[in-house]
Amino acid sequence: MGESLPGATGTNKECVFCAIASGSRPAHRVLERETCMAFLDARPLFPGHVLLVPRTHRATLVDLPSNDAAPFVEAAQALCVAIEDGLGADGTFVGINNRVSQSVAHLHVHIVPRRRGDGLRGFFWPRQPYESDAEAASFAERIRRALH
Amino acid sequence: MGESLPGATGTNKECVFCAIASGSRPAHRVLERETCMAFLDARPLFPGHVLLVPRTHRATLVDLPSNDAAPFVEAAQALCVAIEDGLGADGTFVGINNRVSQSVAHLHVHIVPRRRGDGLRGFFWPRQPYESDAEAASFAERIRRALH
Repeated sequence: MGESLPGATGTNKECVFCAIASGSRPAHRVLERETCMAFLDARPLFPGHVLLVPRTHRATLVDLPSNDAAPFVEAAQALCVAIEDGLGADGTFVGINNRVSQSVAHLHVHIVPRRRGDGLRGFFWPRQPYESDAEAASFAERIRRALH
Repeated sequence: MGESLPGATGTNKECVFCAIASGSRPAHRVLERETCMAFLDARPLFPGHVLLVPRTHRATLVDLPSNDAAPFVEAAQALCVAIEDGLGADGTFVGINNRVSQSVAHLHVHIVPRRRGDGLRGFFWPRQPYESDAEAASFAERIRRALH
């Protein structure tokens, strides 16, 4: 799985999201649950962009324990509904960066209000088909093998 | 919550992801679970980009039943690990478009291999701070109110 991010479990004293979750660092908090909480991203893609984090320090999505998964999804769903209802958004973008492009090594789910015609596309990045079906088959096989 | 996408529950005969899940439409399948499955996106951001979908037609993340949430997260975690291990990726990007920029109205989680220096940033989009703390506070309040 490549190298571990620091502080994969427990509470990390250096971690800004642990500090927000515990209340020792201020943030615009929007949701409080037993095992997770959410607050406004200070540099939003659009106003109302929130970050959902587990209260316990978990480095990436893979580090979220199975017992915490259902309440975490339920909180994300509640935020998607509230962002549409409360901000009059047409939809939401939900995103997680694991390791690469992950600015804070504490799992955080970006939930961003979207509007039709807001100028973003789902993904800005160039997407292109595989050069051949055989190329695609070889990538699928490598992933399947790693799953077993 | 704005308008509903068509076919919010059950199986949708018009839905290409229902057809892939049931096996009536070919795809490079990589994961099979009781309530979800994953296959290669035909137009990947990077080769090995997969889509994880519930087998039952669910329009968006909000429509995923709570009983299916934990196995869905577990499948996403397994795919993140397999994409790193099987493809030698440094990390992953996990993303869901709900309604806006959602090309197929059947919940699908993009799981994309990432490498350091791959030229993508976590989000390409311009991000900027709120103009004032009061502005941020008002957005947080609107979301909190909609949660209750």
